[in-house]
Amino acid sequence: MESLNINVFNPVRIHFGNGFINNTGKIAKKYSNLAMIITGKTSMQKSGVLDRLVKILKDEGVKQVIYDKITPNPTIDEIDEAARIAKEKGVGLIIGLGGGSPLDSSKAIAVAAKGNIPVWDYLKTPAAAALPVITIVSTSGTGSEVNRYSVMTNPKTKEKPGFGYECMYPKEAIIDPEIMTSMPPYVTATTGFDVFVHVLEAFTGKMRNAFSSAYCMQAFYLLKDNLIKAYNEPNNPEARGNMALASALAGLAIDLSGVGIIHALEHPVSGNYPNVAHGAGLAALTVESMKYNLEACKRDFMLIAHHLGVKRAGKSDDEYAYALIEKIEEILKSINLNVRLKDLGVEKDRLPKMAKEAFATMGFAAQNNPKDVDEKAALRLLELSY
Amino acid sequence: MESLNINVFNPVRIHFGNGFINNTGKIAKKYSNLAMIITGKTSMQKSGVLDRLVKILKDEGVKQVIYDKITPNPTIDEIDEAARIAKEKGVGLIIGLGGGSPLDSSKAIAVAAKGNIPVWDYLKTPAAAALPVITIVSTSGTGSEVNRYSVMTNPKTKEKPGFGYECMYPKEAIIDPEIMTSMPPYVTATTGFDVFVHVLEAFTGKMRNAFSSAYCMQAFYLLKDNLIKAYNEPNNPEARGNMALASALAGLAIDLSGVGIIHALEHPVSGNYPNVAHGAGLAALTVESMKYNLEACKRDFMLIAHHLGVKRAGKSDDEYAYALIEKIEEILKSINLNVRLKDLGVEKDRLPKMAKEAFATMGFAAQNNPKDVDEKAALRLLELSY
Repeated sequence: MESLNINVFNPVRIHFGNGFINNTGKIAKKYSNLAMIITGKTSMQKSGVLDRLVKILKDEGVKQVIYDKITPNPTIDEIDEAARIAKEKGVGLIIGLGGGSPLDSSKAIAVAAKGNIPVWDYLKTPAAAALPVITIVSTSGTGSEVNRYSVMTNPKTKEKPGFGYECMYPKEAIIDPEIMTSMPPYVTATTGFDVFVHVLEAFTGKMRNAFSSAYCMQAFYLLKDNLIKAYNEPNNPEARGNMALASALAGLAIDLSGVGIIHALEHPVSGNYPNVAHGAGLAALTVESMKYNLEACKRDFMLIAHHLGVKRAGKSDDEYAYALIEKIEEILKSINLNVRLKDLGVEKDRLPKMAKEAFATMGFAAQNNPKDVDEKAALRLLELSY
Repeated sequence: MESLNINVFNPVRIHFGNGFINNTGKIAKKYSNLAMIITGKTSMQKSGVLDRLVKILKDEGVKQVIYDKITPNPTIDEIDEAARIAKEKGVGLIIGLGGGSPLDSSKAIAVAAKGNIPVWDYLKTPAAAALPVITIVSTSGTGSEVNRYSVMTNPKTKEKPGFGYECMYPKEAIIDPEIMTSMPPYVTATTGFDVFVHVLEAFTGKMRNAFSSAYCMQAFYLLKDNLIKAYNEPNNPEARGNMALASALAGLAIDLSGVGIIHALEHPVSGNYPNVAHGAGLAALTVESMKYNLEACKRDFMLIAHHLGVKRAGKSDDEYAYALIEKIEEILKSINLNVRLKDLGVEKDRLPKMAKEAFATMGFAAQNNPKDVDEKAALRLLELSY
């Protein structure tokens, strides 16, 4: 048995298909005639998807308020501002459009718009109600489209915690690979690698179970043939579609089984350096973290290596498990993400602060890591990844 | 991409764990203070689980009405009678306790108790509302514990259709492997083989997708080590737990992607011969149906063979795919289920009627079969399986 006690629940209606975005109006109307669209400052405007969504909603008589100021690492100020506007206008539905940042924010805004306290306070005060949320994801990586989690940054303290309550599950997730072909290569690489780390950590973590492992195995299988392909062939619809599926499967997996030390360490990185893409921070931290977990995860790493197509060919168990780490290094090179923390502009004297923050705001992830980690070990991982 | 359009939704709260049945009172109270327990005539009484459940509910102040007349192939008369009693008593919650028969019935009763027409009419009239249902499964095979489907038999016409609407999803599914150790070997074999056929048909059917395939692959993996072990070692808690997980995964898979010709043909078998266990009927039909589907499923069969531990060892693709069929024959022998329709008491002159019924009441399953099937081909499969 994979785990002694398992609880499975995910009420999101997932719709996957090319062109499915055209149905957003009909779906939105089930919830409200006044929706707030949450998105970033540029990509959905440039790709024309925002205009297209506005028209789709309008055609079904759904009015809209647009909040398009979400930054790559969304701050609590942005979230509280959007929530205030949503309240003022009497918005009945939040539509998150874009990558992980607007999607995460849409869920946090949905909570803050229903309550009477700043969103930061929900780290300690459980939220019981939220406005309904529809997610329309434009990248393949976040997993946020299908789960309850939201990550936000406190610009004063540079903390970047994740949180999630049952009321924060999106009602519906629209996954339309067609709108993903406009994703630039760097975004394809960083978000695609995020998918890999999601399934790596959910598959090996202490909270793993048979259901999340099912999602992970299928995601590994899809990653094998499609991560590098989507990077090299941005307009390949099959690669885009399969990466979108892998992202959703990974999102379901972490919803059940959480993440581990790689995510726990990355949040302080992009929290302190908001210009660092989450996936780039993960890339810098993954290899050393995998070496740290190797002994605790030997059989899992062998299984993942098998799923990623690494040939066994006479390797001992130890060698085969280690071959996964080499495979990941090879993948990172193929998508131009073989970076170190130094390359991302991280200052060495901030590492101790970041090691501390990994436990202060992402303690639940650190605790889920297959091998126990303390602050000292975390600092060592940051140093080795520098 | 596995499928062009995918819709995923399953709102059931699944609770898995040894001894979890002890929490049923607390869970039931969320829905109502008066529950109706639906179960069969003997096994839950003999094993003491029914008495235990009654006490668990009582201790939390949940009153109960017991309907323990469900037969192995539940009839619409039983369902309508239970629904009438539920209405009379003002029951607010239905608890299905046992194997597939009481679980399927509990969902049908929940619909009929909320409406004003006989349950048979819901084959044509969609149901929009049902009483809340909690399932407590005592076998590992039905999958009914986690999906919306219900199968019922019309004793006049001998038809045995399946049906399912969104309102029929159980609210909560309690999967407690401890209560499964009392399952007799024949039940372990027939229900365990049902799990295999669920995942075989969901994994290869036309409606397959990445999400259902994830459940299937994990279920194959669990079946490999635990089906025969659970049969040979009824008290092995790990084997029981893993078969219970496999059953739930398979139930989620068919909820998304349906079944195929094996199920379409089996329903007329146990519909016409109510003493035939569903899993025994499936066992008689599987090998010939797999031969029929072999060409259409070559790559899938190879993948399943791999997941079930069949060694490749120099086999050609054709040989490796066929090796899965031989593996299934071997498994059927190991669990004493290598039966033919004749052995189950089926009369040869009824085969044409049964071939017709496969399409009349299980047409959606026949249509989902990887290779197209018409009535003539269905009759041929029945004859070859006789």
